[in-house]
Amino acid sequence: MSRPIVIIGGDAAGMSAASKAKRLKPDLEVIVFERDQHISYAACGMPYWLGGVIDSDEKLKALPLEVARKKRGIDVRIRHEVTAIDLASKSVQVTNLETGESFAQPYDKLLIATGASAVKPPIPGLDLPGVFTLRSLTDAQRIHAYMERTQPRRAVVIGAGYIGLEMAEAMRDRQMETTVVEMLPHIMPNFDPDMVGEVAEHLAEKGVKVLVETRVTGVQQAGDHLEVATSASPEPIPADMVIVSTGVRPNVALARDAGIRLGETGAIWVDKQLRTSAPDVFAAGDCVEYYHRVLERNVWIPLAPSANKGGRIAGENMVGGQVEFPGILGTAIVKVFDDTMALTGVTERQAQENEALFGPVASVVITDRDRAGYYPGAQPIRVKIVFQQQGGRILGAQIVSRGMAGKRIDTFVAAITARMTLAEFAMLDLAYAPPFSPVYDPVLVAANVGLKKVK
Amino acid sequence: MSRPIVIIGGDAAGMSAASKAKRLKPDLEVIVFERDQHISYAACGMPYWLGGVIDSDEKLKALPLEVARKKRGIDVRIRHEVTAIDLASKSVQVTNLETGESFAQPYDKLLIATGASAVKPPIPGLDLPGVFTLRSLTDAQRIHAYMERTQPRRAVVIGAGYIGLEMAEAMRDRQMETTVVEMLPHIMPNFDPDMVGEVAEHLAEKGVKVLVETRVTGVQQAGDHLEVATSASPEPIPADMVIVSTGVRPNVALARDAGIRLGETGAIWVDKQLRTSAPDVFAAGDCVEYYHRVLERNVWIPLAPSANKGGRIAGENMVGGQVEFPGILGTAIVKVFDDTMALTGVTERQAQENEALFGPVASVVITDRDRAGYYPGAQPIRVKIVFQQQGGRILGAQIVSRGMAGKRIDTFVAAITARMTLAEFAMLDLAYAPPFSPVYDPVLVAANVGLKKVK
Repeated sequence: MSRPIVIIGGDAAGMSAASKAKRLKPDLEVIVFERDQHISYAACGMPYWLGGVIDSDEKLKALPLEVARKKRGIDVRIRHEVTAIDLASKSVQVTNLETGESFAQPYDKLLIATGASAVKPPIPGLDLPGVFTLRSLTDAQRIHAYMERTQPRRAVVIGAGYIGLEMAEAMRDRQMETTVVEMLPHIMPNFDPDMVGEVAEHLAEKGVKVLVETRVTGVQQAGDHLEVATSASPEPIPADMVIVSTGVRPNVALARDAGIRLGETGAIWVDKQLRTSAPDVFAAGDCVEYYHRVLERNVWIPLAPSANKGGRIAGENMVGGQVEFPGILGTAIVKVFDDTMALTGVTERQAQENEALFGPVASVVITDRDRAGYYPGAQPIRVKIVFQQQGGRILGAQIVSRGMAGKRIDTFVAAITARMTLAEFAMLDLAYAPPFSPVYDPVLVAANVGLKKVK
Repeated sequence: MSRPIVIIGGDAAGMSAASKAKRLKPDLEVIVFERDQHISYAACGMPYWLGGVIDSDEKLKALPLEVARKKRGIDVRIRHEVTAIDLASKSVQVTNLETGESFAQPYDKLLIATGASAVKPPIPGLDLPGVFTLRSLTDAQRIHAYMERTQPRRAVVIGAGYIGLEMAEAMRDRQMETTVVEMLPHIMPNFDPDMVGEVAEHLAEKGVKVLVETRVTGVQQAGDHLEVATSASPEPIPADMVIVSTGVRPNVALARDAGIRLGETGAIWVDKQLRTSAPDVFAAGDCVEYYHRVLERNVWIPLAPSANKGGRIAGENMVGGQVEFPGILGTAIVKVFDDTMALTGVTERQAQENEALFGPVASVVITDRDRAGYYPGAQPIRVKIVFQQQGGRILGAQIVSRGMAGKRIDTFVAAITARMTLAEFAMLDLAYAPPFSPVYDPVLVAANVGLKKVK
């Protein structure tokens, strides 16, 4: 009897792999074990459901369980936890969380798609009712149920990264008094400091109070509400709910315990075909480190696009493919009320930290309008490019804009992937008409100004 | 006494060149002769002024005359027509159109930036009052004055290209009954036929009547209005004004008469440094043919971005630079009411016509949403990619979308410039968040679907 393909984890990576494998080899048995009750949902959409922008969490279910099972023929087992991988016998130990029953499942090929988990920092009180992390749909459902039941009026968000700011917006959309507390010196620590000023002001305009360089020292119950103590003031911040969005960590325990190699980032090491150090074992998604095309080494940046792409590639390679995942640029985009922040490649800080690789680096920042200045609705846009001083190869870019113009980061994604220089970029024949761009698109203006610093 | 730099034409190319030359060599004398009374205005913005979206033509004046003269130190002479170029004596013959005076002006380096002119097809009646072309700001001012004076209620636009459709929208913005007559089988003949359907429907929704495969056979006065006779019906179309937007031709008479080489396109031939065949004579802007980076030969596609870039490069090379203009992709974008159409590189038809260069070509068209499907305001987007069957190198792309998403064409611009294949493109780490894109951006979906046709 032939052994099946087994996939640990039914997130985007796991289900992408399962779908791809079944599409290529419909006769193969593909089993997915998912600990949770949900598979492959649009995790990035959760803040919009919690803010009321989307009216039902059903809309976030990218791949309904019945479609995965019946239409795609994938044997999905929810509420099944894999507790161990035995490389010698090529099997996994599984517990059915509903029945408590345990069993061994042999595999032909195995995919580890265990994802990542929210981290709660070691601060007293983060286990109190009303304190939440947001990583899984189950988390989101807990928050949603809590808000429906208690109608909170005041929220504190710990951490001013992507999720923190999206949740701050969601809380304001629900008319809550909202305070964001960030330990580091500025919001969106993934961006360079010179790119965050407008957005910080915009948050204030929208009624979000932001405290930077501030530590949360504890959360405690105070009658019917919570109090968040911070390093900023002796007075605690009263809150009806607290969102902890201080980061995530890869779920690597299963892999580590099986002796599978972890990388320097702490996530699972994989080669370009997404094979782990163990024979017949692949890994993809938020639990692995992917190759970074600018940094030229593996990094751990868990985001949905690379989880999906990686899963698809692993699925193909598990059924005999030889496809390579060329890597990521860490591209990200986030809506903060009416503003957009986007980045790709490396920031100036990262570039400077890697001058051994890049040599001396330089940067340029310009502000302009996203359309012809005379065209109604033209909005401010700020573009930063980071590049090698010698020769001007582009290493990274950041855009902050009002409205949708932040998606222009994709032009840099293609250019950086192609290892373009500023001089080459400045000559791109980008699209122009007054409702869409000035005659020199702001990204070209930035490149032209930056050229003056190239040696 | 040293001779000046002389520039024939004060459009975007001419003024870009003059500005660049003065910036690099402030002590040089730079003279610009412009036949018209306006210099360097935003010609692409004119339909928006005529439609009332922009309230004054002053806003279109990119570089006010006084700024050019006083701040940039350029000796701009408006209403001065250059009537001949004498290569032997390195001088141009100039007539002051205000005084009638004629004089010879020696040059050290000469730039021909004579632009292009609207072409009126040989149809009877196109010289009647109320019949207009739209190429120069003077044209726009004539149309504007006519509309203010006569308050026309019915417009016929001949030609359904960029300007024709922009003018149709402008006329509808002014509440006019508007009919567009196009000789070819579909609107926007620059696009492939399979990309224009939604926009044709959208025009109808917006109350624009479009007649394709229809010739205008004549225009005549009928009492207080005009009648436009067409091949579609024995009944002429009554109109209070007619816009002829059937094309443009390069202004090459001066160059040709001086014995300067024209290219196969009929526009002025230049090398990559924008030198003409004559020593010390450069040319840039809408009067020249530029190198097309996909077709690998010179083409004549007169658009503002290459006029600006070309002017700047010519300006640098006239003062001793050796900068090359790497060429164009023919990228264009146009707003048609709420829709956007954008293209870059070659269409499928052009690719097929050039199979000697490309080998067998293939294409893919997909429709998707510009944002996560569950995110409010997600809009339809249609993406077409044209590519080499063998290896999948991308040769061109077209996007039709509701809203601003057409600017994503720029991702293809960078990719095509870098000679990316579909497989490489499909792995681009493009920006994702639900308000901006599905997890696989539609351009990636198109690439993934197209990959199945690559050999």
